[in-house]
Amino acid sequence: MATGSSGSSRSPSARSARPEVSVLRVGHRPGRDPRLTTHVALAARAFGAKRMFLHPRDDALAERLAAVTHRWGGDFAVVPADDWKSVVRSFPGAVVHLTMYGLPLERCLPRLRRASQVLLVVGGAKVPPELYRRATHNVAVGHQPHSEVAAVAVVLERLLGLPKPARPGIARQRIVPSARGKRVVGGRVRP
Amino acid sequence: MATGSSGSSRSPSARSARPEVSVLRVGHRPGRDPRLTTHVALAARAFGAKRMFLHPRDDALAERLAAVTHRWGGDFAVVPADDWKSVVRSFPGAVVHLTMYGLPLERCLPRLRRASQVLLVVGGAKVPPELYRRATHNVAVGHQPHSEVAAVAVVLERLLGLPKPARPGIARQRIVPSARGKRVVGGRVRP
Repeated sequence: MATGSSGSSRSPSARSARPEVSVLRVGHRPGRDPRLTTHVALAARAFGAKRMFLHPRDDALAERLAAVTHRWGGDFAVVPADDWKSVVRSFPGAVVHLTMYGLPLERCLPRLRRASQVLLVVGGAKVPPELYRRATHNVAVGHQPHSEVAAVAVVLERLLGLPKPARPGIARQRIVPSARGKRVVGGRVRP
Repeated sequence: MATGSSGSSRSPSARSARPEVSVLRVGHRPGRDPRLTTHVALAARAFGAKRMFLHPRDDALAERLAAVTHRWGGDFAVVPADDWKSVVRSFPGAVVHLTMYGLPLERCLPRLRRASQVLLVVGGAKVPPELYRRATHNVAVGHQPHSEVAAVAVVLERLLGLPKPARPGIARQRIVPSARGKRVVGGRVRP
């Protein structure tokens, strides 16, 4: 999608100038209104993340996102994370905990842009305190209370740029930018 | 707050290079989980908007945001909008409907930056079709489905820049940016 990369971006020699970004959402509460976590996942996908690890797992949410990706293109996936610590521990890159208490994003951006892989970690209302220790960086997108959806979107936008309109043929369905009204090319019934 | 302006920013001669931004949230559903609209409001405030018009009104939500502003500073307010059309009609500036079907944000940004006042309009699941006609601009923050929280935050960030840490004395409570853990100065009990 927005990253424009194809195939493995793990090889340092082959990777583009932009990091591959994953998101880890901890403290999701299945059973409560899932819209907030859905919005985190949709924003992660739309702004160019490759995947969102979700703790605790929520298979219904993962399926809804798979349907979005099926229709709108790309290979974004929601990956169940029964143990969030092992995701953080085994991540082969910079682990960036997004928190209003952290260091200003602007100060951390140059280092993050040089990483080959970045994991953005966002919590819900209660963040496990050890996340502050386990993260490579604690980073604030402003030092005011706001939203994990906003934090993920703004960091991705600053790291990868604004997403471009989809190219023809990439997705089953794509939008043709329009000054008024809605123009969509393709549909849901193509094989 | 992030805009750094004080007093009236309505006077064209006195205004800074940055527009004053308001948000209009239509299609809020009081009674359902209010977190999504709360996140739109918090993101609007944190990224430098002056106010959020809310249709339909939700006094409990407005009070929660007033408490945040009381504690964390600034003069952001949630303004009830019983008639969203009159807000759009009477707005003295550019009305920007954020929709995945619109023109790319990047193309519209130069014009928006020159406006003295900008109203960002975000809908819920069902947007009144006439909004596409009544808006000055229909603008897409990417052409993929994502989130009104993300859209508001990214547009504000592109218009006004990333919010800076609060200066001492501005708010009852402020965060001191920190590489690990939480540092907060001030408290809730000061008069």
